[in-house]
Amino acid sequence: MDTTAPLHPDVAELAGLLGTWRGQGRGEYPTIDSFEYQEEVSFGHVGKPFLTYRQSTIRLDTGLPAHAEIGYLRGVGAGRLELVLAHPTGVAEIAEGTIEHLADPAGGLRLHLHSTQVARTTTAKRVDSLERRIDITGDTLHYDLSMAAVGEPHQHHLSATLHRQA
Amino acid sequence: MDTTAPLHPDVAELAGLLGTWRGQGRGEYPTIDSFEYQEEVSFGHVGKPFLTYRQSTIRLDTGLPAHAEIGYLRGVGAGRLELVLAHPTGVAEIAEGTIEHLADPAGGLRLHLHSTQVARTTTAKRVDSLERRIDITGDTLHYDLSMAAVGEPHQHHLSATLHRQA
Repeated sequence: MDTTAPLHPDVAELAGLLGTWRGQGRGEYPTIDSFEYQEEVSFGHVGKPFLTYRQSTIRLDTGLPAHAEIGYLRGVGAGRLELVLAHPTGVAEIAEGTIEHLADPAGGLRLHLHSTQVARTTTAKRVDSLERRIDITGDTLHYDLSMAAVGEPHQHHLSATLHRQA
Repeated sequence: MDTTAPLHPDVAELAGLLGTWRGQGRGEYPTIDSFEYQEEVSFGHVGKPFLTYRQSTIRLDTGLPAHAEIGYLRGVGAGRLELVLAHPTGVAEIAEGTIEHLADPAGGLRLHLHSTQVARTTTAKRVDSLERRIDITGDTLHYDLSMAAVGEPHQHHLSATLHRQA
């Protein structure tokens, strides 16, 4: 999906996300054993007012593919952004939130997104809400994800720290 | 996302979709001028009970990227499938439907999917329903997409014929 087209002005302030990121994370939830994972995230663009986003993880204990998700981040102006995401678990996520510029000499960026709609297929597990905080400082990306799912209240589920690949 | 893992049995009957497809299509809708496009579609897998799906088009008149969509097709047994899709226009689509095997010596497959939920961001254009018919005969894929959007009744929007790439 990447292109030689210039970055669209509506996503210019998201330029710090572009590239491929790798690192490790940890997941927890009351209904499952805690687990650790390797992750790869990529943000790209095609010159239109959105970034492409894809993510996949591998469980450290089994070496097998775990979660993945794929979609788009839309720049909509006034420091706001929208996320449209498909999960292979049968869940589609619409989230909206803010872009904040951190006072960091390396160029810090903080994204905070809350789901506004979580749609799902007949056979998918129930997910009621998702909240994502993503901090970027230079070539380091840290995120936290909280969710309400399978009848549990909204709470912390995932954190990971990733590094931009050269 | 592709892997050397064997295809998961839940998506075995979708094996005829795997690969990259290219061709041309035509779009129409009461609110816009008709248009023609080049399209590339890919289906892959990672050994789990879903196929990865991505699609992108280029307008024939301008040579510029037009639509794109990305997501997952889930095999859920009993000849049924589920689609979870993100559109960069701010729309997330959940669709469900049937897999039918056609009486064709080359191995025909017909998928018919109706949206069950169409979620969208604050700034997205309104889309109320999407219906997809996909026919595969050997290395030829033909699809028709109908939709209800921007206040118009459900009607034909896109058709394309694609060929599997070697």
